[in-house]
Amino acid sequence: MATEPIAALLGALTAGTCEIIDLTAPLSSRTPIIGLPAPYPNTPGFSLTEISRYDDERGHWYWNEIHTGEHVGTHLDAPNHWITGRDGLDVSRIPLRHLLAPAVVLDFAAEAADDPGFLLEIEHVEAWIAAHGPLPEGGWLLYRTGWDERAHDQDAFLNEGRTPGVSVECARYLAASPIAGLGVETVGTDAGAAHSFDLPFPCHDLLLGAGKYGLTQLANLAALPATGALLLVAPLPIVGGSGSPARVLALMNH
Amino acid sequence: MATEPIAALLGALTAGTCEIIDLTAPLSSRTPIIGLPAPYPNTPGFSLTEISRYDDERGHWYWNEIHTGEHVGTHLDAPNHWITGRDGLDVSRIPLRHLLAPAVVLDFAAEAADDPGFLLEIEHVEAWIAAHGPLPEGGWLLYRTGWDERAHDQDAFLNEGRTPGVSVECARYLAASPIAGLGVETVGTDAGAAHSFDLPFPCHDLLLGAGKYGLTQLANLAALPATGALLLVAPLPIVGGSGSPARVLALMNH
Repeated sequence: MATEPIAALLGALTAGTCEIIDLTAPLSSRTPIIGLPAPYPNTPGFSLTEISRYDDERGHWYWNEIHTGEHVGTHLDAPNHWITGRDGLDVSRIPLRHLLAPAVVLDFAAEAADDPGFLLEIEHVEAWIAAHGPLPEGGWLLYRTGWDERAHDQDAFLNEGRTPGVSVECARYLAASPIAGLGVETVGTDAGAAHSFDLPFPCHDLLLGAGKYGLTQLANLAALPATGALLLVAPLPIVGGSGSPARVLALMNH
Repeated sequence: MATEPIAALLGALTAGTCEIIDLTAPLSSRTPIIGLPAPYPNTPGFSLTEISRYDDERGHWYWNEIHTGEHVGTHLDAPNHWITGRDGLDVSRIPLRHLLAPAVVLDFAAEAADDPGFLLEIEHVEAWIAAHGPLPEGGWLLYRTGWDERAHDQDAFLNEGRTPGVSVECARYLAASPIAGLGVETVGTDAGAAHSFDLPFPCHDLLLGAGKYGLTQLANLAALPATGALLLVAPLPIVGGSGSPARVLALMNH
C-alpha cells in the first residue's frame, strides 16, 4: 500500500490517463528577453559557444558553453530578486514542496486579445474562486493571456510595452493569498506598463516581498485544466541566485 | 476517479508518506568540473556576474548573468553529445516520459571506498537483478559510489583520475538494456581511467550511441530505495544542445 501513489501515477502515465505537459519555452538565441529602459542595465540573452564538435583534434564529442541571464526564457524569480525580498530565499533554497505543487489556471486570453494592456483585478480572481474553489495553499496561480503565441518573436512578445499583467490592488491581494507563486506567459510577472503604476512593478514588489515566487514565459497553459494539475517547477539550484531558467512541466489527468 | 493519481500523490506529500529528495548538487563557482588532458579543450565552470543589486542607479532589484558549460554540475548528457549519437536527440527533444520515470539504485559505495577505480561489471548488475527484479523499461539506473561526499572539493572529486565507473562489457550490456539512462555521482558517467580503455569512454560511446542518456554529479542517492522511486529529470530545453545542467528530484515512499 505504501507504494501506491507513485506506482499509481506511473501506471496512469503508461495507460495515458495522466499526461505530462511541457510548459517550458525552448531556449536559444531567439528566446525573447525583457528590455528595460535606460538607465537600467539589461540581461544578456541566451547563447551557446561551441567547445568542440566531433573532430579529431578536439575530441569525438560535441559540447557548448552557455551564456545567459538568470531571468531569461521560462524562469523563476526568487524572493531575493527584489529589494522587498532581499532577506528572503535565494533560488537554491526554495522548499521542494513548492517545486511540486498544485496549480490552477485563470484564463484571460480572450480579454488580453481585445486589450493587450489587460490587468487582472481582484474581482476577476474572486469570480474565478466562486466558480472553481479556493486558490491552492502553497500552490501556483497560472495566469493565461495567450501571450505564449508571441514567444517566437521578440517584438511581438514585448509589443512596445503593451503586455498584460496584474493591477496593484490585485497584486496586493495575491501577496496575501495562500499561493506559493504566480506564473505568467509574458516576459515578466508584471504588465509592460507596470513601471508607471502608482506602485511600480507591483507583482515583483509585493509578491516577492511576501516570500512568494514568480514564474514567467510559460507555454502551453491552454492545455491545462482550471484545477487539478500538478506543477513541477525545476530551477537550477544557483547558490545565492536571484532566479534561474527553469524547466516547468505539468501533470494532468485526461 | 480520474483525478486519483495526482490527488493521491499530493495527499501523500502532505501527509508525509511520500517524500521529495533533491538529487542536485548546488551550482556555484565551486562546483567541480571535468578536467580533460591536452589537447582537448575544457568546459568553463559555473560563474555569475552581477547585473545589478538593489541600488538606485541600476534598479531596486538583484540579478546576474550566468556563464557555464552544458556539462557542469548535475547535468544531463543527450545522445548527440557523442559522435556515436550525433544523429540522435538533442537535449531539447528528450521525450517527457523519460524525464519522469522510475529509477533503481545500485549501491557500490562500499566497493568504491575500497577501490576508487572500481568498475561496475555485468555480474554486478545481474546479481542486483536477481535480488531486486528487472531494470526499469524506459527508466533510470542510478549507480551509487559514495562519490557525492567529495563533491565539495574539485581535487577530491576528480581524485587524480581515479574515479569509479563502468567496464566496457558492462556499458555494452547497459546499452542493450531497457533503461533510458544511467545516472552517476561522479563528474561523468565514465570512470576516470576510461580514456585508456580498449574502447575509450564506453558509457559515452555505447549508451549515447544507443540513444540513451547520461546523468552526472547526482547527490543524495543514499536516501533512495533500491526500487520504487520516481525520478524527475529537468534539463533546460536548449535547442540543439548536447546536454544541460539539470534539476533532478526523486519521489519516494516512506
